[in-house]
Amino acid sequence: MLVVMNRQATAEQIDAVVAAIRRMNLTAHPMPGSTRTAIGITGNLSAVDPRSLEVLPGVEELLRVTKPYKLASREMHAADTYVRTTQTTVGPGTFTLIAGPCSVENEEMILRTADFLVSKGVRLMRAGAFKPRSSPYSFQGMGLEGLEILARARQRTGIGVVTELMDTDNADAVEQAADIIQIGTRNMQNFSLLKRVALTSKPVLLKRGLSATLEEWLMAAEYVMAGGNYNVVLCERGVRTFSDHSRNTLDLSVIPPVKHLSHLPILVDPSHGTGKRDYVPAMALAALAAGADGLLIEVHPDPDRALSDGAQSLNFAGFGRLLDWLRRLAEPLGRTIN
Amino acid sequence: MLVVMNRQATAEQIDAVVAAIRRMNLTAHPMPGSTRTAIGITGNLSAVDPRSLEVLPGVEELLRVTKPYKLASREMHAADTYVRTTQTTVGPGTFTLIAGPCSVENEEMILRTADFLVSKGVRLMRAGAFKPRSSPYSFQGMGLEGLEILARARQRTGIGVVTELMDTDNADAVEQAADIIQIGTRNMQNFSLLKRVALTSKPVLLKRGLSATLEEWLMAAEYVMAGGNYNVVLCERGVRTFSDHSRNTLDLSVIPPVKHLSHLPILVDPSHGTGKRDYVPAMALAALAAGADGLLIEVHPDPDRALSDGAQSLNFAGFGRLLDWLRRLAEPLGRTIN
Amino acid sequence: MLVVMNRQATAEQIDAVVAAIRRMNLTAHPMPGSTRTAIGITGNLSAVDPRSLEVLPGVEELLRVTKPYKLASREMHAADTYVRTTQTTVGPGTFTLIAGPCSVENEEMILRTADFLVSKGVRLMRAGAFKPRSSPYSFQGMGLEGLEILARARQRTGIGVVTELMDTDNADAVEQAADIIQIGTRNMQNFSLLKRVALTSKPVLLKRGLSATLEEWLMAAEYVMAGGNYNVVLCERGVRTFSDHSRNTLDLSVIPPVKHLSHLPILVDPSHGTGKRDYVPAMALAALAAGADGLLIEVHPDPDRALSDGAQSLNFAGFGRLLDWLRRLAEPLGRTIN
Amino acid sequence: MLVVMNRQATAEQIDAVVAAIRRMNLTAHPMPGSTRTAIGITGNLSAVDPRSLEVLPGVEELLRVTKPYKLASREMHAADTYVRTTQTTVGPGTFTLIAGPCSVENEEMILRTADFLVSKGVRLMRAGAFKPRSSPYSFQGMGLEGLEILARARQRTGIGVVTELMDTDNADAVEQAADIIQIGTRNMQNFSLLKRVALTSKPVLLKRGLSATLEEWLMAAEYVMAGGNYNVVLCERGVRTFSDHSRNTLDLSVIPPVKHLSHLPILVDPSHGTGKRDYVPAMALAALAAGADGLLIEVHPDPDRALSDGAQSLNFAGFGRLLDWLRRLAEPLGRTIN
Repeated sequence: MLVVMNRQATAEQIDAVVAAIRRMNLTAHPMPGSTRTAIGITGNLSAVDPRSLEVLPGVEELLRVTKPYKLASREMHAADTYVRTTQTTVGPGTFTLIAGPCSVENEEMILRTADFLVSKGVRLMRAGAFKPRSSPYSFQGMGLEGLEILARARQRTGIGVVTELMDTDNADAVEQAADIIQIGTRNMQNFSLLKRVALTSKPVLLKRGLSATLEEWLMAAEYVMAGGNYNVVLCERGVRTFSDHSRNTLDLSVIPPVKHLSHLPILVDPSHGTGKRDYVPAMALAALAAGADGLLIEVHPDPDRALSDGAQSLNFAGFGRLLDWLRRLAEPLGRTIN
Repeated sequence: MLVVMNRQATAEQIDAVVAAIRRMNLTAHPMPGSTRTAIGITGNLSAVDPRSLEVLPGVEELLRVTKPYKLASREMHAADTYVRTTQTTVGPGTFTLIAGPCSVENEEMILRTADFLVSKGVRLMRAGAFKPRSSPYSFQGMGLEGLEILARARQRTGIGVVTELMDTDNADAVEQAADIIQIGTRNMQNFSLLKRVALTSKPVLLKRGLSATLEEWLMAAEYVMAGGNYNVVLCERGVRTFSDHSRNTLDLSVIPPVKHLSHLPILVDPSHGTGKRDYVPAMALAALAAGADGLLIEVHPDPDRALSDGAQSLNFAGFGRLLDWLRRLAEPLGRTIN
Repeated sequence: MLVVMNRQATAEQIDAVVAAIRRMNLTAHPMPGSTRTAIGITGNLSAVDPRSLEVLPGVEELLRVTKPYKLASREMHAADTYVRTTQTTVGPGTFTLIAGPCSVENEEMILRTADFLVSKGVRLMRAGAFKPRSSPYSFQGMGLEGLEILARARQRTGIGVVTELMDTDNADAVEQAADIIQIGTRNMQNFSLLKRVALTSKPVLLKRGLSATLEEWLMAAEYVMAGGNYNVVLCERGVRTFSDHSRNTLDLSVIPPVKHLSHLPILVDPSHGTGKRDYVPAMALAALAAGADGLLIEVHPDPDRALSDGAQSLNFAGFGRLLDWLRRLAEPLGRTIN
Repeated sequence: MLVVMNRQATAEQIDAVVAAIRRMNLTAHPMPGSTRTAIGITGNLSAVDPRSLEVLPGVEELLRVTKPYKLASREMHAADTYVRTTQTTVGPGTFTLIAGPCSVENEEMILRTADFLVSKGVRLMRAGAFKPRSSPYSFQGMGLEGLEILARARQRTGIGVVTELMDTDNADAVEQAADIIQIGTRNMQNFSLLKRVALTSKPVLLKRGLSATLEEWLMAAEYVMAGGNYNVVLCERGVRTFSDHSRNTLDLSVIPPVKHLSHLPILVDPSHGTGKRDYVPAMALAALAAGADGLLIEVHPDPDRALSDGAQSLNFAGFGRLLDWLRRLAEPLGRTIN
């Protein structure tokens, strides 16, 4: 960390900053310059709130040098992480599809979807039993009954289950039903929930928060990893900006920096990212080309009658066409769809 | 709601939209125009996902007419809501100060702060026992022990306690210790938590999410109210934008629309909004002038040694000076500081 | 357009709104409902400021139905526009590369770059003679001398020239030197400049403003087209958001809505979009997969010594590798690189 | 400036960075640490593009220490700047009102407005002869005829004129007619225009760009000052965010940092900031309380019939009421309305 003093800073002010640094059990390295002094700081900086130095008299600003995440960082762990489930492996070289409806609506539609996906070679199905809805008057999901339906579909077809956990109360039930536990965008910084999934035996799919910086997102992953669960898969699903041409702004440009700064795999959710099924295929292909490790994508047997998010769901035929395009594009990129 | 068909829409496409509307048990009112047809929709629209109509062939776009919130809306409930605690009342005409440290650090500093605040006429103290921190390696709060310290300070000084609830597990303990239960910005759409505080007997201070629209914020209040707890106080605390001159962008401009659209009281938190103590007084005065119903403000006996957020905390002298200014400004505005 | 009255609106207020609509020479269609009245508006709405109705007593809100752009809209002009220069054609089916340095620095580097690009089959070179720089102390471009260098490179190698026009003073000179005139992101709503390029005989490359909505961008294109120049190429180059992992947030998700709403071709500039050369190839491939019609991309003979934007420029070898990848990916997509 | 090397950086990579720094005629100060090396840079850094070092092998990131603006910075020029016109002075201690219609519509309404404002003690009138409109089909202003009307109103009433310059072509005419030349938000980074107004003898009112950081805004002021015109008044008018409850997000929180970092006066435009007249008074009072040096505010004799922006204009009675409130609030703040 580097404290930049302003031009008018007195020797007393510089000494006071040095003393404050030492009170934090850190080492101060004053560097006098021609117009101002800077003070380098070394030591264990992870718990320091930089702003507490910034407000001392004579301080112009404080610059942080090191990243606060460790377990999630590529600097600490150079090799790519591969996350394994019973059915498949998520990570570089492959391109994993996780497809299915927004919500579990009934057993029949889940079985139809599972059968269809298996017939297409898809090994993981997404479907929510607990649904975070912005209105209390909207369908809130089937709850535990939904989890049971998913378990039966899994048993009958062998497909893996990816489903969202919204609170610690249902952690055991979701851990048992799921092959991958999803943490939704609104809960990315629900730290109690992150600590709880850190204790489960299942991989965690961590969606990026609506306005999360890359650092905050990796720090959320760090919560899960610091608690002992190293199997984290990131998922970009659109962020909130001024832009109104789609539901959210799908930030594909986060993929190269994620790959640079972290060893964790990253998926893309073009369904939530765009909010409109017509725009999903273009963004799905772009995610593959940009280097994502897979997709989370909404598929529904009859999107126009879906209880939630039908507007962004593909029907079976549409998903089949997209799959053909993905296969064609994966080949020259040296990737295998799984 | 209004469905706008595109210019090339066929009669069959228009009929299909009308049929889809009727399947939702709503009434369709086709309005043919010179260049295109629009279709009005009436009935109970609260559970309709507008995007499911938007994707039908021939539809250009769908415009929503009614707001999705009811209990939180001024249209449904014209009179201002006043939220009462044992110590005071929050609402128009008064200007309520809720002051105190970011976290409970130990009993001594809480008692000192409570004594100081009481001596200044402040009736509500804020202090977190459970702290949402972006890093798992930062101080996470004293937990239940912190709640006990707050309870003792309350008993000794009579000051009311405002403290954050982060998860359903600790809901009973926080409900017992708090005069107002705070829901933090990161949990504004933690719907499980909102449903849980709806069941408590204490008022809820609902901070605006980092990138929440006004509608989403009022819908979060609606979750609490729909569950039976009508005592909701909103709190603006800065939103996330491109702007980097302060920690967040404090959105004072939300105050007039909140007052127009809702009957709920609204406070402002200039400490989190700016992140820098030097900028807090100006924003505190501006919040009063803009029509807010009070402030949530960080005060610490020794900010430079605070375990969290010291950079944005005022010390006692600074808070005293701000209080003088607030009193001077409140008078011509016809407001009473409490 | 639709005026939504609030529930408490009186008959007099409704009549006043109807009268205001008629004063604008428009037709009002009152539609009384069970809980409120809405008033449809038809006629020539292009010059109406919707907010002037919104502030009338009793009005809840005003919903706009029609898009304000006409010449740029696909509804008015269904067929894709192809923009032709002496060297090539920009539009669907092909994938046009416009490559070159940020600035003209001297004749030697421009000739080297032009020769290299021609050898790779690239037909259009970008290079700025006039440079918009955020600091008045930074290199501002070579000006007219830079245009002469570009003209000589064009004559010698046959490569087309794409260069930025910053003000009306230099419009004639840039029109003469350029095959395509670039309007930079900071000038997207410099309406005097848009009206001026509308009078030129050359196609216009219109970069999206840093925080322009899709509608504002198409309205800027409308300015050029309304002035008589129909040859507009859009260019997405990153927008400004809270996100700090790259210089801007490259918004590839705008491509499908652009194609849906407009007939104009759209390019992507991954160099400005990311600001970092390591991230450029991934975003270039993603742009192709997402359906863009080409790229604007920075290439420099020696990026580490560039006078501007070297950090985001590829060197010749890097560009060659990217070109190979683009060709491999273009084939299964049925696109031809030109 | 500080270059932070990554943990795995080799001695050769460190040497290469040092060499690159020296090639820029700067001094490098390598500082080896326990886990990584940092390299301080001193010298004239104003023209350095930090990203050109950031892309060198082994570099983790580059931190900038000094601000790029000089003439606009308080560090260089500690005393507050007061900007003088024939009629009044803008700067701390006073609170300057600049009021009037969005556009010059005809002579009669301008004279009525000027007479009204003078009767209220307002000394500066705003009104646009050249109007930047997002649609080419909207009223574009009366142009030179509008300037003549303003000149006659100035002569007859003695009121000062604040009017917008949109392009260099009309610079002479606007300079002659105006007491303060306004640069609009869309032209904040129209550098050709900034260089041109730097050559005029009149103060410049520089509106903040829709998505301009504080640094970019001060750099735009620096353009004007570097060209020789030191009389710059900043004006906050709302920025673009995700927030949709008002037309823009009025960023009052920028006022304290502007006062900290710069000596230039700052006004606030609550009319454009909110876009809705009902919200203007609250934001006007808040701007005063937050420490702004004045307001730019839309007043129209008959807002509901205005040719542009009527929805955000106050009528005379509304402006009178606001003025009373401003006077009441200015007194305890020790400010004089002028």
